[in-house]
Amino acid sequence: MEVAVVGLGKMGLNLAFNLKDNGHQVKGNDLSVEAMDQARKKDIEVFQELSDLLSSFQKRKIVWLMLPAGEITENVLQQMLPQLNADDIVIEGGNSNYKDSIRRAAKFAENGIHYLDCGTSGGVSGARNNACLMVGGKKEAFQSVEAIFKEVAIENGYIYAGTSGSGHFLKMVHNGIEYGMMQAMGEGFQIVAESDFQFDLAEVAKVWNHGSVIRSWLMEIAQEQFEQSPKLVEYKGEVAASGEAKWTVETALEMGIAVPTIALSLFARNISQEEENFSAKVVSALRNGFGGHEMVMKE
Amino acid sequence: MEVAVVGLGKMGLNLAFNLKDNGHQVKGNDLSVEAMDQARKKDIEVFQELSDLLSSFQKRKIVWLMLPAGEITENVLQQMLPQLNADDIVIEGGNSNYKDSIRRAAKFAENGIHYLDCGTSGGVSGARNNACLMVGGKKEAFQSVEAIFKEVAIENGYIYAGTSGSGHFLKMVHNGIEYGMMQAMGEGFQIVAESDFQFDLAEVAKVWNHGSVIRSWLMEIAQEQFEQSPKLVEYKGEVAASGEAKWTVETALEMGIAVPTIALSLFARNISQEEENFSAKVVSALRNGFGGHEMVMKE
Repeated sequence: MEVAVVGLGKMGLNLAFNLKDNGHQVKGNDLSVEAMDQARKKDIEVFQELSDLLSSFQKRKIVWLMLPAGEITENVLQQMLPQLNADDIVIEGGNSNYKDSIRRAAKFAENGIHYLDCGTSGGVSGARNNACLMVGGKKEAFQSVEAIFKEVAIENGYIYAGTSGSGHFLKMVHNGIEYGMMQAMGEGFQIVAESDFQFDLAEVAKVWNHGSVIRSWLMEIAQEQFEQSPKLVEYKGEVAASGEAKWTVETALEMGIAVPTIALSLFARNISQEEENFSAKVVSALRNGFGGHEMVMKE
Repeated sequence: MEVAVVGLGKMGLNLAFNLKDNGHQVKGNDLSVEAMDQARKKDIEVFQELSDLLSSFQKRKIVWLMLPAGEITENVLQQMLPQLNADDIVIEGGNSNYKDSIRRAAKFAENGIHYLDCGTSGGVSGARNNACLMVGGKKEAFQSVEAIFKEVAIENGYIYAGTSGSGHFLKMVHNGIEYGMMQAMGEGFQIVAESDFQFDLAEVAKVWNHGSVIRSWLMEIAQEQFEQSPKLVEYKGEVAASGEAKWTVETALEMGIAVPTIALSLFARNISQEEENFSAKVVSALRNGFGGHEMVMKE
């Protein structure tokens, strides 16, 4: 099929390669000249202008967006809309908020354009060979491009999740769970690392990957990381949070559900990003107010 | 080798079968007649009396305990001690507190008896074929029975963890991480289950097991469980806590380390066990005290 990938970052570029390997006529677009060059080297036709990319289609347009969620995705979608026709298909593969996806799908449906929200997991290597895809939207639209999802995903690694927004909803919760799993591992490894036993963290992760209850892809990554860097000394321990766990907690709040470990995983990342923590200053000041406590002050 | 398994519960019985399959002369003991019968059927020599079991050894005694941690393990160990000689080996495979293991190893060492603390993961199927073992104690003692650990464990599924207590320390932290991972999954699946999208939880778990970042043995178990029972209606949602996560949190407190998600995973289990939650009653009574709030009272 004739497929465009808009956004040739790490995920998009590897998805484009994946599609190309599966015999599709792949074209692409990105703001980065370097990304465009990398695509061109693998015989992916690239266009500097999004409008040129869209007008290059001979048949029904299938446009797969792999862009940062939020403003960039929104702008590109609005730019694309006038050039799309009924029965064209947009696959939005970024980490968008599912509510945006519901709104956008309805907007595109006004012109008969099919809009599929596609949660994507598995990291860069997944995009390259073995993606995990959670797809929401009209079932007929999904079915018309299901062959593509099947090709780029690992076996059993794609799902028709349901109506518009359901794909990104599942990806959102997936990432919420991911935050919790990673934080629990982080906490556990800190105890192991700082205990008086002189553990080799790579060896510990390795044995936990062989037969234990907590064996997992994340534990395999931990093993690899500890093998490369036994104490992770080069890391600052400042962890970014890209939005999905926040939305998971917001969704849980709207639903009146308690998600204490996912919420605290997110809060732990938020704290990790602060050079100075104001709540700690307040607690410190209050203790100072009691008197009798020695405070850690700035020098 | 001549090996005794003391405690033929689900874990011990399957460990005994595993040892038997690997060509060892396996003998056993349990309070349950039924467990003894099951062992006898597989040509495991069983003894009603622990003292008879111990005096049956022709050569160096190797005794592998698979008993509930705490009083039972303590009593059996005290009962065994007078019948053990220098160079005999005790492998304590229960979920004991690592501090107990340090104390016990020192006690047994007074008589030259080698005491290995062995954290065991992988569940019943692991004990049967593919255990994951974390072993602490004197390295020479470990090495003298390493062949056995290698046989009963999955490939790469055993580790010499370090000095006495280190095996149970690792198992403790392993279980703490396990609590956090399970709670994060529980929270995530609740959002998925109660959302307006009509998700098939088994299908969701399945796609998350194929290529996603959160693929793991626990997610595979979730998939199997949802396949058998899509809404888990037969479960009450009351979750037992067997001690290791509590010790993980206690250890973190002693070390001055924050383990928020592991702690909250444990607290979530504690709350799940309460028919009535007193703190909720207090909050309810306080709101009643403000006036103007309608309270949920007993009928």
